[in-house]
Amino acid sequence: MLYKEYIETNQQRFVAELFEILSIPSISADPAHKPDMLNTAHWVKRSLIAAGVDAAELCETGGNPVVYAEKIIDPKLPTILVYGHYDVQPAVPLHLWHNQPFAPVIKDGKIFARGACDDKGQMFMHIKAFEMMVQSNALPCNVKFMIEGEEEIGSDHLGAFVSANKAKLKADIILISDTSIIANDIPSIDSGLRGLSYVEVEVTGPNKDLHSGVYGGAIANPIHVLCEMIASLHDENGKITIPNFYDKVAELSAKERTMLAEAPFDLSAYKNELEIADVKGEDAYSTMERASIRPTLDVNGIWGGYIGEGAKTVLPSKAHAKISMRLVPNQSSDEITALFKQHFENIAPKSVKVEVHAHHGGEPYVIAIDHIGYKAAEKAMKTTFGKQPVPTRGGGSIPIVALFEKELGLKSVLMGFGLDSDAIHSPNEHFGIWNFLKGIETIPYFYQYYVEMAEKK
Amino acid sequence: MLYKEYIETNQQRFVAELFEILSIPSISADPAHKPDMLNTAHWVKRSLIAAGVDAAELCETGGNPVVYAEKIIDPKLPTILVYGHYDVQPAVPLHLWHNQPFAPVIKDGKIFARGACDDKGQMFMHIKAFEMMVQSNALPCNVKFMIEGEEEIGSDHLGAFVSANKAKLKADIILISDTSIIANDIPSIDSGLRGLSYVEVEVTGPNKDLHSGVYGGAIANPIHVLCEMIASLHDENGKITIPNFYDKVAELSAKERTMLAEAPFDLSAYKNELEIADVKGEDAYSTMERASIRPTLDVNGIWGGYIGEGAKTVLPSKAHAKISMRLVPNQSSDEITALFKQHFENIAPKSVKVEVHAHHGGEPYVIAIDHIGYKAAEKAMKTTFGKQPVPTRGGGSIPIVALFEKELGLKSVLMGFGLDSDAIHSPNEHFGIWNFLKGIETIPYFYQYYVEMAEKK
Repeated sequence: MLYKEYIETNQQRFVAELFEILSIPSISADPAHKPDMLNTAHWVKRSLIAAGVDAAELCETGGNPVVYAEKIIDPKLPTILVYGHYDVQPAVPLHLWHNQPFAPVIKDGKIFARGACDDKGQMFMHIKAFEMMVQSNALPCNVKFMIEGEEEIGSDHLGAFVSANKAKLKADIILISDTSIIANDIPSIDSGLRGLSYVEVEVTGPNKDLHSGVYGGAIANPIHVLCEMIASLHDENGKITIPNFYDKVAELSAKERTMLAEAPFDLSAYKNELEIADVKGEDAYSTMERASIRPTLDVNGIWGGYIGEGAKTVLPSKAHAKISMRLVPNQSSDEITALFKQHFENIAPKSVKVEVHAHHGGEPYVIAIDHIGYKAAEKAMKTTFGKQPVPTRGGGSIPIVALFEKELGLKSVLMGFGLDSDAIHSPNEHFGIWNFLKGIETIPYFYQYYVEMAEKK
Repeated sequence: MLYKEYIETNQQRFVAELFEILSIPSISADPAHKPDMLNTAHWVKRSLIAAGVDAAELCETGGNPVVYAEKIIDPKLPTILVYGHYDVQPAVPLHLWHNQPFAPVIKDGKIFARGACDDKGQMFMHIKAFEMMVQSNALPCNVKFMIEGEEEIGSDHLGAFVSANKAKLKADIILISDTSIIANDIPSIDSGLRGLSYVEVEVTGPNKDLHSGVYGGAIANPIHVLCEMIASLHDENGKITIPNFYDKVAELSAKERTMLAEAPFDLSAYKNELEIADVKGEDAYSTMERASIRPTLDVNGIWGGYIGEGAKTVLPSKAHAKISMRLVPNQSSDEITALFKQHFENIAPKSVKVEVHAHHGGEPYVIAIDHIGYKAAEKAMKTTFGKQPVPTRGGGSIPIVALFEKELGLKSVLMGFGLDSDAIHSPNEHFGIWNFLKGIETIPYFYQYYVEMAEKK
């Protein structure tokens, strides 16, 4: 097997190169690292050129540049658009790291560094897989790379970039490695992601903080009212009570639910890990379904009144909460936010005033498991893992994936190689060298199978 | 009328002397003011000696000293024990004051300074009234003074002092001016105060903060659970749902409720003042009753999850609330705290763990309006105000009043002369000179009528 040999021969260089980019602190959230962002973008560009693209460029955006590159071998062949990001999360709290976050080290077969997995390591797999195909004269189709520098801060400028560059980004499928597999011996592919509506609510009772001895019991306490309103947002069956909330929810077929249920799940281990005596959620759905294919509503934060040490007998003027809803196909973030706002205002008692402010949202995403993009990834993983990957549904949200579909009309294949235990966004982020090399090995099979399946269509 | 003349002649000196004690920043909450506490205590002692007591002393406690003084004219005569305090609340925020809080000024007939009303001004009325009776050879009974320096920080050491000095403090009635009247033309006397139970609750779901996209909808969110539990603490009639909570509540007679209802109350002005469209409380009770003669439960603070700027999709491990209950005769603070704890633990779902911690509490207090202490105060006020005072029930709590009753077996008469608008505990605290002098004029009548009524018994 040519690829296996190539990887074996070059793996030390692959890791050494990855160490280079991991050493640049490209923290997009921190303006002090602006020069590092540019250095990293240039590093990615040089790396793509070295790997064999026809052309690479830094595209200006309102923020950090997008690195764009392409290799067009034949306009009649399919084109794969690879998306990834070169920015990373902040590394604080530093004292919890066992090594300097931007001085990568290898321990127990894993690379420890901020961005090792998310997403420098997973993005770099694609550059090395591409190099390998070029070097092996085995590239079966056209490739485009779009590597951005603002994913960890909401991809604020990517929408405008994509919208303004539709011709340049024309492709047949998008391939992304920014998710994880269940375990190294249980490959899996995310076939969907949830969307998000996020609101902040304010309940105002009296116009100033009052003494609870003087006014308590006589006027509505905004904390009580907020608690009652929050409590009323779920019914006794765990259903969300906002009218029309479920109207557009895509229900899965029995077959799809059966397939999802094949992913291994140990309820007892799950409860032990979280130290909870019981799970709780929507009736008639399993824990995994509740966390993936069903829409949810969670209070992410609540505050009001006196929250310092000791006791203060205040009847506060205001109470607040941050509330987010995870959405599933075919719910729309704007619609759900509007439904929430209308409902929350409707149920407010006369004794208070309420305000609802919308934060950012994102649309849900799904790819059919008989889509050739999904099937090509499935076959590629089966080839290299020796095992059919399990379709999973991510509970979280990657809003840009829905944006790509809307703007470019393209499905994204979420073929990730990380593990949930890789501590992305946390101290001591790491990425298994096995996973890094397995990704490089698998990607060319995706290209090959995708082109074969596209030709058959 | 001798007293009126005496007051007219001496009023400028009275105010000048009050200015002296108001100039000492005796903030008991701030350890930096420890020397000021002692200076103030000495000032009070000197002032009592100058007014004519037989003896005065600073009694050591675990904290700031208690100033004790007495004048015993005949052991067979009744003894009145005057309680007051020389410590004050902190003056922050300073920028909201129109004058320096410890540099008193007179404006519109009012003395502006921290402590002007609470309680230096009201306490000093008693010293000047005593001086006046002594100077007029009109003191009709024995007097004891107990002026403490820790009222604003919970009177932590007063319980032990009282308990250790029962013989010294032996008296027939306690007289306190630390409350207010409804208006200068509507005199009133507090015939009761509410007690307090104060707890802090913690609801724990998973053992760490989680990503709401990954776990949302599948496990109990401790904020939701806390909200549901709080919402369930009142029923649809505004009644508290804790079992046995109302068992010992002293219900007022129709006659007592009618008398209380005589205090003027304008619901529309009340709502306008607080800018609320509606009041809310226990069915079948008026707003004034809800805020005085009925027990209540209020959440004073709530917090959990992400409460910073913007949006974070956390499913928190813990949620907290501070909850206080105002108690009425004959509820007991310890009993109610125990009932709350038991109920809160009982209603917690299996999916969370809850903890309930008790903060300080205090017992409710009531004095019958046909008690000779109350009647003497009523007659004294009627004499000087020209109007029968209205009996009121304070919604707040003064725990030491219940403590005096328990330890000394004595009822306290709450004959205050401040106004609710005096801004005690707030910037620009003030005390009307009219009120100050009216207090000095009224107090000797209390002595006189109390002795007359006690003799008749």
